[in-house]
Formats: sequence, structure tokens, C-alpha cells
Amino acid sequence: MTPTVKAILDKYESDNPGVKGNLARILMQGRLGGTGKMVILPVDQGFEHGPGRSFAINEPAYDPHYHYQLAIDAGLNAYAAPLGALEAGAGTFAGQIPTILKINSSNSWATRKDQAVTGGVDDALRLGCSAIGFTIYPGSEEAMDMIEEVRELSAEAKSVGIATVIWAYPRGGDLSKEGELGLDVTAYGAHMAALLGAHIIKVKLPSAHIEQPDAKKAYEGDWNAQADRVRHVVKACFNGRRLVVFSGGAAKSADSVYQDARDIRDGGGNGSIIGRNAFQRPRADALEMLDRLVRIYKGEE
Amino acid sequence: MTPTVKAILDKYESDNPGVKGNLARILMQGRLGGTGKMVILPVDQGFEHGPGRSFAINEPAYDPHYHYQLAIDAGLNAYAAPLGALEAGAGTFAGQIPTILKINSSNSWATRKDQAVTGGVDDALRLGCSAIGFTIYPGSEEAMDMIEEVRELSAEAKSVGIATVIWAYPRGGDLSKEGELGLDVTAYGAHMAALLGAHIIKVKLPSAHIEQPDAKKAYEGDWNAQADRVRHVVKACFNGRRLVVFSGGAAKSADSVYQDARDIRDGGGNGSIIGRNAFQRPRADALEMLDRLVRIYKGEE
Amino acid sequence: MTPTVKAILDKYESDNPGVKGNLARILMQGRLGGTGKMVILPVDQGFEHGPGRSFAINEPAYDPHYHYQLAIDAGLNAYAAPLGALEAGAGTFAGQIPTILKINSSNSWATRKDQAVTGGVDDALRLGCSAIGFTIYPGSEEAMDMIEEVRELSAEAKSVGIATVIWAYPRGGDLSKEGELGLDVTAYGAHMAALLGAHIIKVKLPSAHIEQPDAKKAYEGDWNAQADRVRHVVKACFNGRRLVVFSGGAAKSADSVYQDARDIRDGGGNGSIIGRNAFQRPRADALEMLDRLVRIYKGEE
Amino acid sequence: MTPTVKAILDKYESDNPGVKGNLARILMQGRLGGTGKMVILPVDQGFEHGPGRSFAINEPAYDPHYHYQLAIDAGLNAYAAPLGALEAGAGTFAGQIPTILKINSSNSWATRKDQAVTGGVDDALRLGCSAIGFTIYPGSEEAMDMIEEVRELSAEAKSVGIATVIWAYPRGGDLSKEGELGLDVTAYGAHMAALLGAHIIKVKLPSAHIEQPDAKKAYEGDWNAQADRVRHVVKACFNGRRLVVFSGGAAKSADSVYQDARDIRDGGGNGSIIGRNAFQRPRADALEMLDRLVRIYKGEE
Amino acid sequence: MTPTVKAILDKYESDNPGVKGNLARILMQGRLGGTGKMVILPVDQGFEHGPGRSFAINEPAYDPHYHYQLAIDAGLNAYAAPLGALEAGAGTFAGQIPTILKINSSNSWATRKDQAVTGGVDDALRLGCSAIGFTIYPGSEEAMDMIEEVRELSAEAKSVGIATVIWAYPRGGDLSKEGELGLDVTAYGAHMAALLGAHIIKVKLPSAHIEQPDAKKAYEGDWNAQADRVRHVVKACFNGRRLVVFSGGAAKSADSVYQDARDIRDGGGNGSIIGRNAFQRPRADALEMLDRLVRIYKGEE
Repeated sequence: MTPTVKAILDKYESDNPGVKGNLARILMQGRLGGTGKMVILPVDQGFEHGPGRSFAINEPAYDPHYHYQLAIDAGLNAYAAPLGALEAGAGTFAGQIPTILKINSSNSWATRKDQAVTGGVDDALRLGCSAIGFTIYPGSEEAMDMIEEVRELSAEAKSVGIATVIWAYPRGGDLSKEGELGLDVTAYGAHMAALLGAHIIKVKLPSAHIEQPDAKKAYEGDWNAQADRVRHVVKACFNGRRLVVFSGGAAKSADSVYQDARDIRDGGGNGSIIGRNAFQRPRADALEMLDRLVRIYKGEE
Repeated sequence: MTPTVKAILDKYESDNPGVKGNLARILMQGRLGGTGKMVILPVDQGFEHGPGRSFAINEPAYDPHYHYQLAIDAGLNAYAAPLGALEAGAGTFAGQIPTILKINSSNSWATRKDQAVTGGVDDALRLGCSAIGFTIYPGSEEAMDMIEEVRELSAEAKSVGIATVIWAYPRGGDLSKEGELGLDVTAYGAHMAALLGAHIIKVKLPSAHIEQPDAKKAYEGDWNAQADRVRHVVKACFNGRRLVVFSGGAAKSADSVYQDARDIRDGGGNGSIIGRNAFQRPRADALEMLDRLVRIYKGEE
Repeated sequence: MTPTVKAILDKYESDNPGVKGNLARILMQGRLGGTGKMVILPVDQGFEHGPGRSFAINEPAYDPHYHYQLAIDAGLNAYAAPLGALEAGAGTFAGQIPTILKINSSNSWATRKDQAVTGGVDDALRLGCSAIGFTIYPGSEEAMDMIEEVRELSAEAKSVGIATVIWAYPRGGDLSKEGELGLDVTAYGAHMAALLGAHIIKVKLPSAHIEQPDAKKAYEGDWNAQADRVRHVVKACFNGRRLVVFSGGAAKSADSVYQDARDIRDGGGNGSIIGRNAFQRPRADALEMLDRLVRIYKGEE
Repeated sequence: MTPTVKAILDKYESDNPGVKGNLARILMQGRLGGTGKMVILPVDQGFEHGPGRSFAINEPAYDPHYHYQLAIDAGLNAYAAPLGALEAGAGTFAGQIPTILKINSSNSWATRKDQAVTGGVDDALRLGCSAIGFTIYPGSEEAMDMIEEVRELSAEAKSVGIATVIWAYPRGGDLSKEGELGLDVTAYGAHMAALLGAHIIKVKLPSAHIEQPDAKKAYEGDWNAQADRVRHVVKACFNGRRLVVFSGGAAKSADSVYQDARDIRDGGGNGSIIGRNAFQRPRADALEMLDRLVRIYKGEE
Repeated sequence: MTPTVKAILDKYESDNPGVKGNLARILMQGRLGGTGKMVILPVDQGFEHGPGRSFAINEPAYDPHYHYQLAIDAGLNAYAAPLGALEAGAGTFAGQIPTILKINSSNSWATRKDQAVTGGVDDALRLGCSAIGFTIYPGSEEAMDMIEEVRELSAEAKSVGIATVIWAYPRGGDLSKEGELGLDVTAYGAHMAALLGAHIIKVKLPSAHIEQPDAKKAYEGDWNAQADRVRHVVKACFNGRRLVVFSGGAAKSADSVYQDARDIRDGGGNGSIIGRNAFQRPRADALEMLDRLVRIYKGEE
């Protein structure tokens, strides 16, 4: 165990050794093991967008084993997916990479800004997962219900040594479309996740937009540099006492993915959680991209 | 046990031997036993459409024993029905054919796109069922509640060695009527069932319609051949790692039922779940039709 | 399902279809399927006598898969073994042969006439077993405790559709060594098992000895014919309303095993549960012996 | 419902209507229905003495159905038996006669004055029993354990509307053999049963012997008339507020059975619980004897 | 993951991915990771013999952190200790080495051959342990109670993905002192552990003594070579389907420790569990000894 990881774990001072052990497993895994940085592969887009939109572009990705193997071969820190996808590979890949059971999901036909709970802590235990993952939609009319759901599931998870990852994705309610990525909104959502007891917080990279009139004063100044915005979000997560990873959103050019990673790194973020930009590329391209991301987080690029 | 069935069971790598044993029972039963193909008789139309619309055309079908006997005499793989219908025959036919307890049902007077839970895992155990069956309506305003229901019931079933069959029937919400059978929609619903941890997925045979604007790009090409559409749905179910059966819908000509079966077979589907087209015909005709279906799945026609 | 098996199942008139289905599975399995007769392979001698005494004579028998395969290849009705032995093969052989989880066991060093509970109904469910097996020692100082154990486990099993097999092996207390096999004692132990709600009763073949002074009057007459003694034990099990199988005891000559089977058959017993005489012979010899046993029970020899 | 039975039920003033309903079922059943008198057939001698000693003298009695039918044909009030015996007929005879599940039993090899619990309240419910029956051995070293067992089981039974019958059979400990039937001892045991909350108390017909030196003063006077002794026991059961039935013991002459019944009747007892004297006689004789008993309790003889 | 470890995991065919993952963690940890061999450090001698006898010889060993660090620095596979000892270091060393919570212990003042349960599965989860460890004393008057304890704890552990290690240490009852290490006795104890569902079995290196008269025939031949004796014990554990590790016993010369390891390796055992011979030596000596053990198991010496 490296001093860097040890220092991170020490910040989870109220958690039992089981939770710390699972955080350690994620932080010590793969090529970034020990650096305090992470690249995580999440594959729940089949639930969110359907299989065709998610996998037709790279047909082997229809197979759940493909993603396990990609995450392992790329030397990533963890693989996150909904129940059925983990069940389809958890036996074969037992012990090879930490897994995060994504226990709620939305879908393209959702008529409200909500997600359905699709898994439980018992599932996480029997599948050998290191963490549960749960999405909240700060701003949504359903936000309070989602918060109460994650409270119960997270409390149960903590009692059995399983870590909690919260996806904080503001949307719905009075939020404007632009506001969903606003800096103040993103920081707010991340802070809510921290207050809910998340061990790892996942947000989208924020824009320089400030959504809330009441917050404008607090956000005076220049937020054009993405690394500064990352730094602000990290600060909003208990001044760096909680791990924060950033998602890349829709597939885009490799160069912008790399630039994002450099900004996350330079802003003190803990890494990338990168789905479509990985599995929607041909495997060789994905491995090359993930290799460069790893090197960026290692400070080699 | 045939190598074909063994290979299928191996794909259920996170399930306990109890669940595998019940899947094996279904797959090894009847005239298709061992082939990896199935024909299942479901009789829940009395709940969905009322007894008159369901059974008046073939009066003996008012008797639950009729359906048990039909499924047995036709050499089918399993018989699926709601609680009361199984209770009415489970003693007489104990051990003669695997049964699937359909544990939720809608009805003709439903004021929302939902189903009521009508049975439980305890019922399945005391009635000796091999699986529970549960319908979700992807697209419906109630879809998330239905998903949360099946999650709990399926987790309980898995823990006691009972398999889960999910009927994925998109409807409601923003879906157009044509869209309910759309290829993208059907594949999406099937994929959701797989992600929810279903062991067997039941969908309707999809049309070539593509419903979702965002999915059009992924579905470019020619989908006129039904076998190709079947193949796509199978791919959407973890690239064939989960069993997929297709329902025939309303009663229609025998020839179109046979052609459907050939397409399911040629597209790599695992079989037919065929209700009204069986029990709404006179018994002799039904047996003849089921015999041909079996032969088609055996590749003899 | 044959009329013979149907008639047997009808006698279990208070049991739910789940239990009946599991009894049917055992009765319809293998080469004796449908005859109402059974040959069951039990392998708990490793627990009772140790691995060396049990398996050194036929080294492949150290492997739990050996016994599963032997029971399957010989076309037997069921395989019974303790927890670990079933766990070691339940995945590979799921659905291939009904299994009985032997949930209590003694050992060569037991300092009292008792057995330890080594498995539970939950284990039976997750391993896909059709029945639990439990030994009582009528006569022992521990008999009442054993009875109370099986009552609770059997009640739980019945509620979830699992059948109960009781091994009734009188010993201990005031019983003489000769008395353990006495006709009155064997019939009494079998009757106790029936009163405890056993679905299948397993006893040793009784001698003509009458142990209890108070019972001598009831047992006046000639009991020299083993078939007559079997017939009496069957009568003591609710006049044939319960299945009774007989164990062969220590390894002995093939001819005496065959004669035993003929006597069991002629006396109306339901079959043999034959362990050491099967697995302590070389596989080819065991298969030959089991083949003849099957033929005897079919009335072909 | 007759005023007599209504008056009896009114004395069970703390019991819920479920328990009262079951007592009413027993009291309104058969030829004595409505009289407040009862004749009950108990068959647990197979457990207590073994099948040979119990049934060889009247072979049809090996079949559990025999006893159900005998109790029904004789117009008795209830049939009592252990778990397996009721399971073997409860389906066939459902609703035909109230049943009492005897939930503990001893056996001929018991090494201590105790009984094993062999059934539960759940069993009584699923088998449709009106009452549980439980034996205590006042005087035995095990008496306190037995009392604690019946407390728990009776409390559970009452909560679900099932009545409790306690067999109070003093034996063991410092009691002399003669003392087991002593008047003071019998009354004491019956009173303990009443204090334990029994709805129906079953004792043996007491002798005139007074066992306890300390009780001699209280029992001065002439106890030679059996009816007087019965009257004393009834008084010991809350001055007649609880139903008391008397058992006949080992098979004996018909005339002495009749005389016992007259004494029970004249002493204010509520009836006979008569096992071996019924089922160990040929069926025709048994029916004749039971007919006379009924007529005696009706005051016709 | 190496093919060797994958092949081992495949033998645990009834276990869920959680258990497999924890077995994988142990097998992939440290310098022997991937070889299928293990060296485990157990420190429960403080409970068994008291702190003075255990640690005075090497004072730093009074500190629980000492043992964690020793196991980590030596590149071992796991560290096993009772509750308090793990609690004292589990936070500091979270994620650095798999731990086994030893959940029962005896002590020097024990008045019977038994151990007290000192931890639970909940403890194992909150402390992040990969397995629970439990000692049984085959032969002891308490053996059946111990077996019933481990059954319940192991079933609970399996359901939440925790592995079970059983220490099978025959003693007590009719066993002679020499017999405790007898080959037949050791193999019998190991086999019992396997039948109880242990994932890893720990025994002492057996002597050539054969204790049981009834077993002498099965053990004819030459057992002078320790590797042959190891091979027999491995065979007794389901023919190598279960991991077996051997303990070294009291502190002894380094050379004999090395020879033991070579014999374990050559006999097909899965490794050493070595306590006093490690922590009762000065740290440098211990590390040197453990280094050589690792190299022996790697086949380098």
C-alpha cells in the first residue's frame, strides 16, 4: 500500500475496515494502483439508452464478458454495471477486478426524472462486489425519494463493508438544460452526495455556467479553465476528503478525452469514469485510449 | 444431459445449483428436451382478457386441467399460469411438467399500464414450480415500480433455487402503438430484462419498425427478414447468454405460426411461448400444431 | 406418470404439490422410473467411518463426482450425501438426478448415540435437492432430541416443497446389539418415522429376533422368511401408505444383495438404498450389480 | 347450539372466538353433539408401544384411515393422533370430524420420563386441527421442561384460535407406582393442567389411594365410589369451568368400560377418551361398544 | 488470474462469485499468488496458550500490528487471528492482505475439549475479512456441538460471499494422544471438514500411526514418507477438490520446517499455515524462513 492511498483511506475515518478494504482494492488495482487516481469502466448504457444505441457500433460489446475483459486488459481500477450484466460474468472473472453493482437505472422512456432500484446489497455480497453505485438527480421532483433510497441502501452497505459510489447528476425540476452542467449546480450535487455519505462521488465535468442567481456572487471570477472547475468540485467534496471521479459523457474525439483527463488530474480530481468513449470504440482503439488515460493520470503525458 | 443444455447452463455462472437444476428441468423436458429449444404453454389470458374471450371458442379450455394435459400430451417444456390456475392442477400433475407461476397480471379494466402482483415465491415453492414469471411494461409510467417489484421477487427466488422468467412487453408512456413492436423497442425491453437478472426472457416477435429517433442510426440497414430481427434480439440478451423465447400474439393461421417458429429457430431464438394459438384451437388441431412446432425446432421441417 | 406412481403420490394426501413433485421426481427417475420401486445411492460412509475405510478399496470413490456419475450411469432414482459432497458436484450435475441432502451425521468417534446436524433446508434449496435425509436412533438416550430436531427441519422442508427421508436406525439405551435389527424393533422404528411425518422411510433389513418382552405375543408365528419380515415393516408404515426402502449394510456377496432385493420386492418394500455394496466395488462390478438390482425390482429376475 | 354447550363456552371467557369455535366444533360433533359430553378416539399407542403391540391384534388398524373412519362411523366428537397419522388422512377426511394433533409422544425405549415434541401449531393449522394435545408428567424430573414446552405451544395455539388439550399423567420422581393413580395426585395433575391454561384436561380415572402425607388430612372421608372421585377431579378443574375427560387405560372387559363411563357421567365428568379399548377390538365390536358409551353419556343406559 | 487458480476456483462449483472472489484474493495474494500454493500466518496462540508463552520470546509480537506487517512483508497469502487482534489492525492494514477471522478459540484452562465462539459473520464483513476460520475437534465429546456451530456459521458466511476455513484437530474422547496425529485420524478429520462444506481445510501433518483398528486394513502398506501421507490427506479432501493446508505445530528447527514444506508440496498439499515457527523467531529470522518457504512452494528449492 502506497502512502498516497493510505492517506486517502485515513480520510474515511468513520468507516469500518471492510469499507476501507474495498476502497483499497479499487485504489490498488490495475496500472493506476497506488497512485490515488482511478479509471473506471461503467456499462449501464444498455439500460439508459438501449442495446442498439450502445453496442451496435462495436458488436462484441453486446457480450458482458467483453467489458470485464476490457477493464482487466486495460488495467483499470473497477468495472461498474447493473445486476444482470455482473451476474453474466461474476463467476468467470471472480477476483480479477473490483466490481461496482449499479443498483438503480433509468431508461429512455422514463416519464419522470427518476431511476428504478434494480439491485440490492445482498446481490452485491453474493456477487463479490466492492461497492454499490446509485444515481441521484438533484433538482428533480424525485430527488428526495432517490435520496431516501440511497440512504437506506448505503447504510446497509456500510454495515457489511461495501462502499457506496453516488452518481450525482442534476436534472429536472427548475433546472435549465444548460444548468444541469453548471459549475454551481455540479458542485452542489457533488456536495449533496458527500453529505449523503458517499465514499466515491461521480459527476460530469462542469461548464463555466452559473445557474443559480443566489449563487452568482459566490462564483464571481474566472472559471474558464476546466482544471479550476474540477478543483472547485473537489473542494466541494469536503475539501478533497472524498474521492471524486468525472464522467466523459457522450462519445467524442480522443483528444478531447485526453484533455479532460489532464484537466481532472491538474484540478486534483481522482480520475475518470469512462464508458461510451471506451466500449463504443473498437477494442484496439479503446485499449490505446485507456492506455493514454492511464499514462496521463500517472503524469507521463 | 446433452452438451447443448450443459453449455446453456454454464452461461448462468452466478446462479446456484438450485436455479440451474430448474432451468435444466425445463430444458430437458418433453420432446424438445436436450435441444436447447423450448415450446412453453402460457395461459393467463383469462386474467388479461376474461374467460369468455379466452375460452368460449374451445369450451374444454375453461378447465385448468385441460391446459396441463395439453402441455403434457404435446410434449412441451413448461406450462405457465397464474396462482389459482396452478393450484387447481398442481396436485394432480405434480412432477409431470415444469410449471412457471405467473406472479403478476393485468386485466381488461386496468386504468393504468401496470400489473398486480398475484403470487409469491412461497407459492412457487409449495406448488413445486420451476420458475416465477413476471411482466414488465418498458415505456409505461409504471415501469419503474414494476422493475422494483421484480427485483425483490427475483432476488428471493434466486436464493431458494427458483428461476425467473421476465415477460418484457413495451407499452404506454410515449411509445406509439406501432412502436410497441418496434425492433429497437423490443430489443431494448429484452435487454432490460437481461439486466434485471432474468434467466429466460420472453418478448413478442418484433416488426421492422424503428421507434426511437435516436436509435435510427444504430439500426440502419435491412431488417425485413424476421430471422434477422430475432437474431438482433438474441444479441441484445447478452449476445445469447440468456434464453429468449418469443410469443405469437393473437390467434392466427397455422402457417404463419409455423413460419414464425422457423424464423425464431433460424435467428437463434430459443423457442416459442404460445398460448391462444394453442388453446383456442380444438385439442386435436392444437396437438397437431404443437407437433409441427416441435418438429420445426428440431429442424425436421 | 404411471398409474403406480400416481397411486403412491395420492397417499401423501396432506402434502403440497411441491413435496409431491419432488417425490414424483425421485419415483420417475432412472430405469425404475414409474415402477414405484427405487434404488438410491447413499454416500455418507466417509462421515460415518472415515475416508480410508470407505474409499481406499476403490480409489476413484474419493472423488464426489464419482458417486454422482455412478448413480446416473446406473439409472438410479436418487443420490444422497452430506453437504460438502453435494456442493462438490451440484453445479456439474444440476438437473441430472434427484439428490437427497443428508443433514445429520455421526462418526466413528461419537461418544453418544447421536448425530450432528450438518445441513439445513436452505442448503437443500440452493443445491436443488429433492429431499432432506435425517437419521433417528430410536432407543438412544438422544432419541427425543433427534426427534425434535427432525420435527423442526421436516416442517420447514414441507413448507417449501422439499420431501423428508428418515433413516430409522434403532440403537443405544436398553436395546441389545441383537435387538437393533429385531423385527419388532425395526417395525417400531419405522412406525415412529411414519408418525414423525417422513415421506420415505429407510430401515435395515430386520432379523427374526423379537426384542421386547411385551411384544412377543403380538409377534407369535413364523418370521423366518425375510419377505414376510419386510411385509410386516411395510405394514407398520401406515399399511403401505408410506414409501419404505431397505439398506444393505456392510459390503457382502453379490448373491446375498440380490436375494435381499428379491425379498424386499416380494415383501412389498419400495426398494434398496445401497451404498458400500455399490461404491466399494470396482465401477464395472458396481454397474453390473446395480443393473441386476434394477432388473430384480422390475421383476425380470 | 344448545344452551348446555353455550354455557360451557361461556366459561372460556378469555379465549378468542377462534378457540371457542373449535371447542364448539368438538362439542357439537357426532351423536353427543350438544350434550356437553364427549367421546374422543386417541391413537398414539403406535408411538408409545410400537405398531405390533398396538395393531397386530386387529390388523386393519395399521391403516390410519381405519381410525378416522371408526371415529366418524361411531359418531364420536374428535380424533386425536400424532403428526404422521393425521397427515395420512387429513386430506381424505377434511371437515368430517374435529382432529386433535398430539404434539408430543414418548416411546417404549424412553430412558427418562419425558416426551419428544413431534408437531407444532403450524402443523395443526395446515392440517385443519381443532386442538393440539400435549402430555405432561407431573412428578417427573422433566416435568418443568414439559410445562415450559406446553406453555409456549399453547400460547401460540391460542393466538391462532386452536384449543389445547393437556394429558396430565403423573409419574416419575418420588411418586410411587400406586401413587400415579392416587386421587390426590390425579386431582393435582388435573389442576396443574387447568392452571397451565388447558381447555380440555385429560386424566386417568383415579383410585382411592392418597399418596401425599401432607394431603391426607384434606382427603379424609370415604372415596370408595368412583363417581365421587370423578366429581373431586372435576372440582379440581376450576369447579367445573374446564372440560375434563377420562381415559380408560389398557384394554379391558366391556362391562368395566361401561361402568367407568357411568361413573364419569354421574360424577360430572365430560366424557371418555378411549383408544385401545376401541381400536384393539374388531370393528364391529368396537362400534357396538362405542354405541353403548354414547348411550350411557346420553343417559339412555 | 492464472490457469492454476482458475482451475481451483472451478472446483467450488456450488459457491457464489462472492466466495470465489475471496478465495481468489487469498490465492492471488503475495509472492505465491497464482501458484495455487499458500503460506498463511495464524496468530491465535495468545488465546490458546496465553500471551507470555506466545510472545515473551519475541516481544514485538505482543503488538497485533507486528503480525499484520510480518505477513505483508513476507508476501504471505493471508493472516488469521481472533476478533480483537483483527480489530486492532484492520483499519491500518485494510486492503493490504486477506484476513481470516478465527471465530472460535479454546484456552489453557478449558475444562472440556471445546472452543468458544468468539466472532461472527457480521464481524467478518465489517472487518473486511475474506474468510472465517473455525476449529472442530473430531473425537471430542463436544464434536457434535462444534459441528452444529460451524454449520450455521458457514451457511451464513456462504450466503454473503465469505469463505470458510475449518481447522480439523482431532482430540479427546477415545482418541489416544498418539492417535491425534494418526494418518487415518487426520484424514478422517479432514474429510469431515470437507463434508461440512469447508473451502479450505487445515490439518496437522500426520504421523504414520494408524489409530483405528477397523481402519488398519485400509491403511496397509508403507506410510513412512511424509509426502505420501500428505497425498493421502489431500485425497481424503474430495480427491483434491478442496484446498488443504498443513500446520507446523510447535516451534522447531528451521530445517524441519523446510522439509515439511517440501513434503507438503511434493504430496500435493496447498501450503503451510505457520504460526509459532514464524512469530516466535526474531523478525529477521522469521522473514528469512518465510522467504525460503515461499521459494520451496515455488519449486525453487
